[in-house]
Amino acid sequence: MRYAYVNGHYCRHGDAAVHVEDRGFQFADAVYEVWGVRYGGLLDAEGHFQRLARSLQELRIEPPCTRPALMRIITELLRRNRVRHGLVYLQISRGQARRDHAFPKKPVPPTIVLTCKRLDFAAADTRAEHGIAVITVPDQRWGRCDIKTVNLLPNVLAKQAAQDAGATEAWLVDDNGYVTEGSSTNAWIVTKAGKLVTRQADNAILHGITRARIFECAQSLGLEVEERAFTPQEAATAREAFLTSATSFVMPVVAIDDKTIANGKPGSLATSLRQTYLSQVYVSGPASHAK
Amino acid sequence: MRYAYVNGHYCRHGDAAVHVEDRGFQFADAVYEVWGVRYGGLLDAEGHFQRLARSLQELRIEPPCTRPALMRIITELLRRNRVRHGLVYLQISRGQARRDHAFPKKPVPPTIVLTCKRLDFAAADTRAEHGIAVITVPDQRWGRCDIKTVNLLPNVLAKQAAQDAGATEAWLVDDNGYVTEGSSTNAWIVTKAGKLVTRQADNAILHGITRARIFECAQSLGLEVEERAFTPQEAATAREAFLTSATSFVMPVVAIDDKTIANGKPGSLATSLRQTYLSQVYVSGPASHAK
Repeated sequence: MRYAYVNGHYCRHGDAAVHVEDRGFQFADAVYEVWGVRYGGLLDAEGHFQRLARSLQELRIEPPCTRPALMRIITELLRRNRVRHGLVYLQISRGQARRDHAFPKKPVPPTIVLTCKRLDFAAADTRAEHGIAVITVPDQRWGRCDIKTVNLLPNVLAKQAAQDAGATEAWLVDDNGYVTEGSSTNAWIVTKAGKLVTRQADNAILHGITRARIFECAQSLGLEVEERAFTPQEAATAREAFLTSATSFVMPVVAIDDKTIANGKPGSLATSLRQTYLSQVYVSGPASHAK
Repeated sequence: MRYAYVNGHYCRHGDAAVHVEDRGFQFADAVYEVWGVRYGGLLDAEGHFQRLARSLQELRIEPPCTRPALMRIITELLRRNRVRHGLVYLQISRGQARRDHAFPKKPVPPTIVLTCKRLDFAAADTRAEHGIAVITVPDQRWGRCDIKTVNLLPNVLAKQAAQDAGATEAWLVDDNGYVTEGSSTNAWIVTKAGKLVTRQADNAILHGITRARIFECAQSLGLEVEERAFTPQEAATAREAFLTSATSFVMPVVAIDDKTIANGKPGSLATSLRQTYLSQVYVSGPASHAK
């Protein structure tokens, strides 16, 4: 039996529902977070909680509960679903109200939904040993991609375009010809000189929690990171490329738009960063769940 | 008792729900339409049906039912809710599936939701006699605003910004300094020479059904329409300004960013167009419902 949590109640996942006039359904007026779960512990719990607080603040949505209360819900949901390796998904919308673009004049309680599921990280490790292919598509998203909202339709279309092309991810290219990020991941390259490059954390990209953690991993490996935009052409001729996210960690990219990157095999720095990340990140789960 | 329609069933409006893993809720992966209803008849029924078909096609969502079937649902829903003057809201999402950005690998049935409600058109007439104020805000929306999707968070924030400023609507200004449209309406001005101006129907605006109808109304009044972009400055010094939508029809705009337009009263052409629209549009409702 699989459980979800909706507005104060644990329920059967199949019964987990929101009203058709929920603003998350009618207006994409909602934020979300995803935590990776390993050995029953949350990865980078603190970073995701902080980003959640910022997303809610940017949209002027009141937090529906305190952080300790949310942590208790997550812990209970993982326990009920017996998830030791997987992810927790949290979505908070502005709530249910008679349809009108503007915020409800009389405030309504936000809608809070949590689900969790198991993931096969061994399969991800295998993928990481081979690397993945990306394509590039125009970045058609809105101007505030730094807020983690469900205004995700362009991301959906980009990811589908990648799958239609036989690739795993789509890297989005802005009007100036620079990569912003992937449809659900941050984008990185390694220069010939061995420097890591990823786009500066402006309004055009999500400020990945894993992305930030990789800065620390790079430092511990003695690698330099440069925050700047790069083009698909620079990526195609780079020494390495990879992407980062909360559930794929560090994933080597071995082809971009059918152009092979370097020798077409995962780069050594990406592989080291993945190992370093996985060895460093466990400890940030809640103590009661850490291995 | 108020009714809604969800996936084949009429239900109490309060019970109308979708699953938390509906792609409309998690990804804004859904389209919608709104029909104005007067004297029990749908306004511009055909135009909205055609746009709906296009929106679905652009997102590669299979229509969940035929047009006659949809028309029967709308008719029944209006009857059950005893709505003679108001609107019908329809939303179709890609359906419910385990969360993943890409389309479900095994297709799922689309989710279809309809609601309707009464509107006080007499109050709208009164508003039209006084005109409304708009503000301008940067257009932060995505690149395919021509598709009528629920990827509406930037529209929500723009409308709220208008209300915070004591105005009714926000006109969105693109990177080149030109008005695209309002957060939920199309934008128009009248030049000193008496020519109507509204932005060309490109990917930056919704191709309003009422907007298209106003072209015909203008013709019947002997007015010329020019499709081109205009700036907030041109609007502020225009002879008239107004907006159009399926439920506000033609609404005079008398101020923009605190600058009074002309003498601060609704313009005569906007008022004529509103009357012409309302006198011409009734007949396009279904015969069984027309007055």
